Amino acid sequence: MASSHTAPSIRLYVPHDLSAAAVVPLDEKQAHYLKNVMRLGPGDALLVFNGRDGEWRATVDALGRRDGALQVGDLARAHIDEPDLWLVFTPIKKARLDVLIEKAAELGAARLIPVLSAHTSVRDINESRAQALVIEAAEQCGRMTVPEVVPIAPLSAVLDALPEDRRLLFCDESGAGTPVATALASEAPGPWAVLIGPEGGFSPDERAMIAAKPFAVPVALGPRVLRADTSAIAALTMVQAHLGDWR
Amino acid sequence: MASSHTAPSIRLYVPHDLSAAAVVPLDEKQAHYLKNVMRLGPGDALLVFNGRDGEWRATVDALGRRDGALQVGDLARAHIDEPDLWLVFTPIKKARLDVLIEKAAELGAARLIPVLSAHTSVRDINESRAQALVIEAAEQCGRMTVPEVVPIAPLSAVLDALPEDRRLLFCDESGAGTPVATALASEAPGPWAVLIGPEGGFSPDERAMIAAKPFAVPVALGPRVLRADTSAIAALTMVQAHLGDWR
Repeated sequence: MASSHTAPSIRLYVPHDLSAAAVVPLDEKQAHYLKNVMRLGPGDALLVFNGRDGEWRATVDALGRRDGALQVGDLARAHIDEPDLWLVFTPIKKARLDVLIEKAAELGAARLIPVLSAHTSVRDINESRAQALVIEAAEQCGRMTVPEVVPIAPLSAVLDALPEDRRLLFCDESGAGTPVATALASEAPGPWAVLIGPEGGFSPDERAMIAAKPFAVPVALGPRVLRADTSAIAALTMVQAHLGDWR
Repeated sequence: MASSHTAPSIRLYVPHDLSAAAVVPLDEKQAHYLKNVMRLGPGDALLVFNGRDGEWRATVDALGRRDGALQVGDLARAHIDEPDLWLVFTPIKKARLDVLIEKAAELGAARLIPVLSAHTSVRDINESRAQALVIEAAEQCGRMTVPEVVPIAPLSAVLDALPEDRRLLFCDESGAGTPVATALASEAPGPWAVLIGPEGGFSPDERAMIAAKPFAVPVALGPRVLRADTSAIAALTMVQAHLGDWR
């Protein structure tokens, strides 16, 4: 769904190249959304983006039951990448996972990395659902890119594959970390990742494995026990506000 | 639901006075929860709190279909108030409102104040549902108090009734405010409120009314359009991290 205070208010992600006068095909889901949900018809205006060519004004060219096409007009906003911020998280139950994924996209995360940990009770995520959620959130929030959702992998494999120059904000449920505002005050912008554990926390072995990484920055998010989705939103907020594009 | 990494793991809010050896009656909903959801029986341990006497160890004394009683043991943690932080918000659709209310409780808000604005499409909130959500979140997150949910009122009335010494973090959707981390760096701890507008923002009249308040601190939450629930969580996070009990 588009935000209501930009005009035109409908903003659609398309995979196709965008340039002046290009004609962009719509798939069945997009045609349905524009025709039946948003009640658009030929000539109506919207915005399109594809994650690389910026945001373009476009008009509906044709709109059928199963497909359609847009006519691209001129560039509305130049492309800009979101900050290089990843979210590493353990899957949680569906309603809260949806919140976590939507909010991570709104808060500008560039990549979502689900991991398996010893205490993870949910062992998989629905990738096509996650993909639909990040696209919808990207359309709604005005970002120029859609976060990448990568396949689930064991925590150890993800940690070992993290580049050494990427700082990892480890949201430590034990409360042993540095208060997050204090920790971030001495850090610099650059590639970052946020690591959120399962409800109940990581196992002692996992905690030791994380602590052994020289790029890990263990932080505490206050005296209350936060749910995983809340922790993710809070941590992404802090990184964006202090080191990201909220400055 | 209780957090899984404190023992005993079940934590119940009760309205009654708590002291060593007190016997506390359970209502039908609590009896059902303990008996049928958590599968407790006589002698099983849990924690209780009432928002004023601290957190106490207790055991199940009796557990029937419609009522029951707890036997209070000794004090587990002394009482502590949450920071004096209020959340002023416009009602939104149900699923997102539930997220906003639950997260505000988790993030330690002391009072939730729903307001009517010109652009508010949802004109009321379900107070008993809100009350149930804040109690459940307080039980889960370990806080000692339950946030107060006050009846909905017009924005102008709420602004006029705010004490002059309470700073108001106004999350300005226009992007005209100071970046939130910068704004908070020059503020001090004390009574605070966070003000979140409706999707689409406040009307020009409402914006002028807010700006005229000497205690208003207009801030921007980054370049993307955040949903109301996301804004509330982000703003509460920033206040707690910088001026509240996350320090």
